[in-house]
Amino acid sequence: MPLTRFSVPPLHTVTRSLSAVAMGREAPDLVITGARLLSTYTERIHEGREVWIKSGRIAVVKPAGTFQPAVGVKTKIYDARGGLLAPGLVDPHIHIESSMMTACAYAEGALLNGTTTIFCDSHEIGNVCDAAGIEWMLRDARQAPLNIFLTVPSTVPATSPRFETAGGDLTPAKIGKLFDKWPEAVALGEKMDFVQVAMGDKRSHAVLGEAIRRGKPVCGHIYGREFVAAGAAAGITDTHESIDRDIADDFLENGLWIFLRGGPPTTPWHSLPLAIKTVTELGANPKRVCVCTDDRDADDLFLFGLDWVVREAVKHGMKPVTAWSMGSLHPATRYAKDADLGGIAPARRADLVLLNDDLVPQNTWYGGELVVEDRKVTPILDKALSKRYRYPKAAYATVKIAPKLKLTPALPTGPVTANVIRTALPGIILFHDKVALNPAPGQTWPDLFAQHGLCFVTVVERHGKSGRVAHGLLKDFNLQEGAVGSSVGHDAHNIILAGTHEADLQLALKTIKAMRGGVCVVRGGKVVAKIALPVAGLLSDKRATVVAAESTALKAAWTAAGCTLPYMGFNLIPLSVIPEIRITDQGLVTVPGMQILPLFEPAAD
Amino acid sequence: MPLTRFSVPPLHTVTRSLSAVAMGREAPDLVITGARLLSTYTERIHEGREVWIKSGRIAVVKPAGTFQPAVGVKTKIYDARGGLLAPGLVDPHIHIESSMMTACAYAEGALLNGTTTIFCDSHEIGNVCDAAGIEWMLRDARQAPLNIFLTVPSTVPATSPRFETAGGDLTPAKIGKLFDKWPEAVALGEKMDFVQVAMGDKRSHAVLGEAIRRGKPVCGHIYGREFVAAGAAAGITDTHESIDRDIADDFLENGLWIFLRGGPPTTPWHSLPLAIKTVTELGANPKRVCVCTDDRDADDLFLFGLDWVVREAVKHGMKPVTAWSMGSLHPATRYAKDADLGGIAPARRADLVLLNDDLVPQNTWYGGELVVEDRKVTPILDKALSKRYRYPKAAYATVKIAPKLKLTPALPTGPVTANVIRTALPGIILFHDKVALNPAPGQTWPDLFAQHGLCFVTVVERHGKSGRVAHGLLKDFNLQEGAVGSSVGHDAHNIILAGTHEADLQLALKTIKAMRGGVCVVRGGKVVAKIALPVAGLLSDKRATVVAAESTALKAAWTAAGCTLPYMGFNLIPLSVIPEIRITDQGLVTVPGMQILPLFEPAAD
Repeated sequence: MPLTRFSVPPLHTVTRSLSAVAMGREAPDLVITGARLLSTYTERIHEGREVWIKSGRIAVVKPAGTFQPAVGVKTKIYDARGGLLAPGLVDPHIHIESSMMTACAYAEGALLNGTTTIFCDSHEIGNVCDAAGIEWMLRDARQAPLNIFLTVPSTVPATSPRFETAGGDLTPAKIGKLFDKWPEAVALGEKMDFVQVAMGDKRSHAVLGEAIRRGKPVCGHIYGREFVAAGAAAGITDTHESIDRDIADDFLENGLWIFLRGGPPTTPWHSLPLAIKTVTELGANPKRVCVCTDDRDADDLFLFGLDWVVREAVKHGMKPVTAWSMGSLHPATRYAKDADLGGIAPARRADLVLLNDDLVPQNTWYGGELVVEDRKVTPILDKALSKRYRYPKAAYATVKIAPKLKLTPALPTGPVTANVIRTALPGIILFHDKVALNPAPGQTWPDLFAQHGLCFVTVVERHGKSGRVAHGLLKDFNLQEGAVGSSVGHDAHNIILAGTHEADLQLALKTIKAMRGGVCVVRGGKVVAKIALPVAGLLSDKRATVVAAESTALKAAWTAAGCTLPYMGFNLIPLSVIPEIRITDQGLVTVPGMQILPLFEPAAD
Repeated sequence: MPLTRFSVPPLHTVTRSLSAVAMGREAPDLVITGARLLSTYTERIHEGREVWIKSGRIAVVKPAGTFQPAVGVKTKIYDARGGLLAPGLVDPHIHIESSMMTACAYAEGALLNGTTTIFCDSHEIGNVCDAAGIEWMLRDARQAPLNIFLTVPSTVPATSPRFETAGGDLTPAKIGKLFDKWPEAVALGEKMDFVQVAMGDKRSHAVLGEAIRRGKPVCGHIYGREFVAAGAAAGITDTHESIDRDIADDFLENGLWIFLRGGPPTTPWHSLPLAIKTVTELGANPKRVCVCTDDRDADDLFLFGLDWVVREAVKHGMKPVTAWSMGSLHPATRYAKDADLGGIAPARRADLVLLNDDLVPQNTWYGGELVVEDRKVTPILDKALSKRYRYPKAAYATVKIAPKLKLTPALPTGPVTANVIRTALPGIILFHDKVALNPAPGQTWPDLFAQHGLCFVTVVERHGKSGRVAHGLLKDFNLQEGAVGSSVGHDAHNIILAGTHEADLQLALKTIKAMRGGVCVVRGGKVVAKIALPVAGLLSDKRATVVAAESTALKAAWTAAGCTLPYMGFNLIPLSVIPEIRITDQGLVTVPGMQILPLFEPAAD
């Protein structure tokens, strides 16, 4: 039988056997002995323990050395040599698609970092392929050697067809059906349109209702302290967007579980150091605080796993036992899965991690199987990772672009005021600048770009719907020459391009089309780096290590081209739910004002 | 519309309106201003707050004084005058039947003590009336002005027909049906037969399976550290039987939520002071610790509510904010009801309590209605309490006793060894003594009683099934003359009698039969106190204050008769799941040995 989450039988089928092992009437399959045990239940470390495992679940925890093998009994014994045994990590909020790999491939990076369960929101593939895409990914998830639960995408499209053209349109009825059909659909995914929620938009609240009347928790996405109470009043009970101390504190007081997001320190994902101050400075109890990763691209998944986020929490003032609990028991409790996950106790899945004293995972057991040893994938996991789910043909045919598109705007013939998108690190929020342009005779776009720190930014609809192209200008992106492009333009996942010349943008678009989706960097008239993402234009179908290597090469080219926003930040430029101004296939959109602006306005006096 | 838990509309029908109030677009129905706020989420107290309430739910919490009534707006304003506003208490484990009143009547005592939600296990009425009795009580609960959830009785009968004859027989199939029919059936009730669970009994595990495969949590009842892991391995995830520090610590480490039980300090219910030492002495984090009441008789319900238990937790070392959280947010979280209950935050029911600085409830709001003010029932609650559910006729016909029963054993004609039940405070555990009896010529039972500190104890089957009577002897009960009797003999609820003469026992039995169930004290050949419990032989159909007064009078007579075990302890004598020896209609039963012993054995040499 392949190694998946179904390799461990449902608890109700094995309670008699587990009780028998706990009472000593039956032998365990595996004993991990000689361990210190990290208790997430009481936040203490216990010396000298051993864990008896049967049918992939924990049967009992005993003092080390208790197990004495009887003649003929085939119990395996693993000596932890004094290492710290902890429950596998539980990531309460991630998007698999950000990793550019399939769920089956994602498992490799997760397990190497001690993560054995994730709650994923597949709203990226939902935006491209509607409910069908979500169901493909659920099938993918069922074949993965990882516990993958779904928080059903709540906001597809992220706003409305007026503001962007997405491939998917998840109506309340479709969302209800997903809940009823898939038992792993345990919550409603982040409700992105927090402004519409606060303003009482009917469709937004109908979506919330589908979850609430089924007793499913609702995950949130809220920016701005003025929207916190309205979001909570609408039934939202968690958020991963605690960007600073005070809003984190507001979230807790409004009854939300908070998921402190950690990520590469140079990116906007790393809000944990600020948000954790609700605990360390304001004295909030951390019992409803979790950690999460949210988004990781392929190579960062290996470097900045949830284990790394836990260690960041320690670095920023949490006790190690508390921090590990924030990454395991607390998320499990938030989703009412603490009977199965998040602690080392009888009946729980034997999803375990052996840590060194710096909380770095050395070994991972998944359902009682040793899948990572000494930080390396074991043969059993290697075999499982080689048999990944294959997405259907329709998933490989999602880049539908009209022919002969003009990718750059005409040069203004007189003085105008341009509505410009100004980028600035960390990069999530984009600023609305007004730039006066008055091309002198003979001046070209590149002359203006040099003058004002600009380049082209273009969105090309790729779902075969509107056929639209929107032109914009990007400030301070610092792309000096060539073009970059991606079919992962959040959340509608149209193609986003930036560059300095029409020809470079055309080459980037052609390259992406040929790959059936992907990312590329063009310099000197040539493609210097690319990643093919043929599944929905979002995912590679290769193994994690391959995608990670491609990602590392792409990032190097990206940086060499001068781009100040990292690749993942660039992908957010079309995301019309984050202030202040974005560009979608429908044009420039202001947030939270939700107005569509022209690129050029008459020049101010 | 009557005041019930359905007076507050389901959240999904009011999210738009609540968001509108939170954003200031609609006016609230009620503002409670000028309060300090006890935050169970962060375990802090905030000065100067006001709570805006709409449709019985909280819409937003603001700084005090924010609300400015507009012209024509009918918002009520209540000045809390600096009192401490806290969420209503949530009792995670109680048996309504112990109060000798109906669910509708129980609400009065609960609300006066700031309890607005209870999770009840109606296994007493289940033992008498099977699934029908549980459904009657669920209908009763739906009419009560209180949030009442059911933990479905898991162990009816408590052991098996071999050891006792109960009226009910809740098979796994019946339990499954209750789960599927009643949405308020949120968990499986305490699995009493912990020995059978540990030994792998098939029916016991089939019952567990009904809950586990539906994703419902399983509540436990475990005595003895050697059984903790096996119970957890069987899927049990809470317990209220933490009788000391070390077993409380074991429970936590085995992944169970613990409900520290407090009760009248002279009774065995008050195990909190010992168990809480897992936190105060052993350093366990209290995030998975709750408080509960378990059982309260009618007058104790008013005196020793869950608020009293919270204050005991403070007395024994917990911070007040933590203790209140153990009585509200923690139990709500244990049952995954924290989106609706347990804290003061938007979307939650406006079940609120105004406390003085000693944590004594002064006011209670239930779903936004002021039901208790200055520790007195308000007219709206008074009206609701006068319209209580009426149980059907069948509920009034459960005492079915065979005619002409012999209630006392014949005097031995030679030397014997008697298997005697010795009582000792606190009274839950009963001890197995062997007493040599050798009546001299002319001696009578009373002579032997005086000599050995004994009296008769008799169980009369009352479900019209076995027709059996079991005779026993009770040591150190100290009943000097007369008899006491009760139709509330846990858990099968046969009639238990104790006394010194056949005639007194007969009068007690006749009195109970005439009342269709109840309790009485006989002295000097007359009934000196009684409480009629005609509903299932367990419940009065009167209002709480009346039952409490009757209970007070009965207890006075009980004590005056010399009985050392209190009334509720006496009722536990037939409970064949607690060590060391009990008496049921099937005779003397040893626990955990589960053997049936004769009253008299041949005298030892």
